[in-house]
Amino acid sequence: MSDIYQKSLIAHKQWKGKLRTILNAPLNNKEELSLAYTPGVAEPCREIHRNPESVYEYTWVGNTVAVITDGTAVLGLGDIGPKASLPVMEGKCALFKSFADIDAIPIALDTKDPDEIIRICKALAPSFGGINLEDISAPRCVTIERELKKTLNIPVFHDDQHGTAIVVAAGLINALKLIKKSFSELKVVVSGAGAAGSSIMFMLRDLGVKNILGFRKEGIIRKEDHDDFLVQELSEFVNPDQLNITLREAMVKADVFIGVSAPRLVDKAMIKSMNSQSIVFALANPEPEISYDDAKEAGAYIIATGRSDFPNQVNNVLAFPGLFRGALDAKATKISEEMKLAAAQGLASLIQDDELNPDYIIPSVFDRRVKDVVSQAVKDIAIHQGLVRKS
Amino acid sequence: MSDIYQKSLIAHKQWKGKLRTILNAPLNNKEELSLAYTPGVAEPCREIHRNPESVYEYTWVGNTVAVITDGTAVLGLGDIGPKASLPVMEGKCALFKSFADIDAIPIALDTKDPDEIIRICKALAPSFGGINLEDISAPRCVTIERELKKTLNIPVFHDDQHGTAIVVAAGLINALKLIKKSFSELKVVVSGAGAAGSSIMFMLRDLGVKNILGFRKEGIIRKEDHDDFLVQELSEFVNPDQLNITLREAMVKADVFIGVSAPRLVDKAMIKSMNSQSIVFALANPEPEISYDDAKEAGAYIIATGRSDFPNQVNNVLAFPGLFRGALDAKATKISEEMKLAAAQGLASLIQDDELNPDYIIPSVFDRRVKDVVSQAVKDIAIHQGLVRKS
Repeated sequence: MSDIYQKSLIAHKQWKGKLRTILNAPLNNKEELSLAYTPGVAEPCREIHRNPESVYEYTWVGNTVAVITDGTAVLGLGDIGPKASLPVMEGKCALFKSFADIDAIPIALDTKDPDEIIRICKALAPSFGGINLEDISAPRCVTIERELKKTLNIPVFHDDQHGTAIVVAAGLINALKLIKKSFSELKVVVSGAGAAGSSIMFMLRDLGVKNILGFRKEGIIRKEDHDDFLVQELSEFVNPDQLNITLREAMVKADVFIGVSAPRLVDKAMIKSMNSQSIVFALANPEPEISYDDAKEAGAYIIATGRSDFPNQVNNVLAFPGLFRGALDAKATKISEEMKLAAAQGLASLIQDDELNPDYIIPSVFDRRVKDVVSQAVKDIAIHQGLVRKS
Repeated sequence: MSDIYQKSLIAHKQWKGKLRTILNAPLNNKEELSLAYTPGVAEPCREIHRNPESVYEYTWVGNTVAVITDGTAVLGLGDIGPKASLPVMEGKCALFKSFADIDAIPIALDTKDPDEIIRICKALAPSFGGINLEDISAPRCVTIERELKKTLNIPVFHDDQHGTAIVVAAGLINALKLIKKSFSELKVVVSGAGAAGSSIMFMLRDLGVKNILGFRKEGIIRKEDHDDFLVQELSEFVNPDQLNITLREAMVKADVFIGVSAPRLVDKAMIKSMNSQSIVFALANPEPEISYDDAKEAGAYIIATGRSDFPNQVNNVLAFPGLFRGALDAKATKISEEMKLAAAQGLASLIQDDELNPDYIIPSVFDRRVKDVVSQAVKDIAIHQGLVRKS
């Protein structure tokens, strides 16, 4: 692993940036200058002033996404600040380009005040077709995203929350086909109630799961937990029987374990205590809650991790490029819960029933059909829901 | 002229944006993903966290400029708001790319509150190598720029103020060689005391001009004028004899007229009343204070306009690309007055004494030497002044 880090450092030094801008209009002579800039440019300005919607016709806005962070929850590195977060933000923007031909711009803010971040995002909104929030610590990220979704009429999406949840949902949809169970029958244990964990639990609820046991560092979530608004909201539907048990106890007879927490929280005995045909999503990265090999040896039927060197990689890049592509193509005004579910279903549908097997419930990151299927599903539902701008 | 507007509208519709992003790092397979993104990207993040200066080594920041507006003073169109300003901002970014290979990003803010704009620019600063303020109305633009220059340690530059001033200064430096006068002997009349006009007057003062008569819509600037802080500052050195006269009266025996105001403020009789070998910069655009032909007929010796279809075009693109290129190359922490003067002198020096003539005091926008000469002059003085980051 230290090898990849050294290689990456050297590569970053050579690149000096994983992005560049290029001209999409010629500027080689007086006439071209007068078309792209003064005096000609006055006319598209006047046209947008008359009809603000036409900004999508005359500028790059409709194909852009701002990738915005405050650097408080970067990878597994934590609160490393805006400057140190920039290699990740640039990488994210490069993924947007590579996987969905979206012009994304890395923006790391020098403030941690949620109200200030909200104000800045609102002020930036006219310049971008969408906002992808990234690596902002929980529960602040939820506050920020909700307020922006309420007030802006462009797609706003916090990938750390919902990107993982969409891919997990897609994997579960396919896993249930293999074990022939429905969401309502499942007992699901979730370890981690941060950005990703909370969004996963909300989505499990929306998919019909009744019995969700959610854990944080402090233990199982119960109604009496009022640490913050997010835990409180989760406690309304998580742990319906108000059990006061450990993670080890909760795993007994569970059908599904989903970990978005920390390395080595789960041992073989815990996997063995699960129901037959158990499903294990051990997504802590790079070191999962239990290794693929250990989970396999302990009898897990289906295993997914965040790693590319094992089957069923849960990678956000399966979701966010197609999701934003579909939303931008639809001129969507927001990302609805239904659009996220459509993205999950679209992603799951890429694997035919006769191809499905325990090592293949999630498509490959390099499956070229992913972006098109996800974006089409998202675009269709956005239009169906009427969540699109009139042009 | 309506022809160019219609052509430009059609061209903008075809382009759908005059910029795009492109990848500068490969993302075609698992290994490339793991270098440019997770897990490898953690290492440059850690490195920047240890040494924030290294953000210039590992990201695109050192080659980027944010082009920031609030849409309050766009071209001659006025306060048309952020969305309608975007074609201009994109055009500006395209010029940054085309003329100086700088990756510039258009950002039009949905706020007109100077304090809010200042806060946002400060929060955006970690993500950019420099900030180019654009089309923000005076005197707010001066307040915003001064505060940002004071607190940020990256180059901040309001082009509408200083871009024009630099090119005017370059033109004057060369014009004085032709008429064999020094700055201290000149009587200069300036019409317009907004962003460009005020910066021009400050620069004339720094160049040694003693007798500057400055006019606004309300008339000649005098010490009793306290409308705003900018007028008050100008009144400290402009109109030293506290004359209470009209523009027509001021033009009598003037050596230089500089207009950054409104069309047709000056007639032939006013030009005729100037000193022999008079210098006329009629820069209102697209329609100047007096047309080139009229000024010529009235006996003006040297005439410059903002238009590309007459000699001596005063075009900001002669200044800002090289200025920022030099500042970024030097890792400058600010744009000093000396760097602006160096840019003007560098620009002027491109025309050799034996090439100088009344129709050639300002180099062509398409003179390929401009960027290199300006950037080198700016870089040298930045290093000489010690206004550079240690790496």
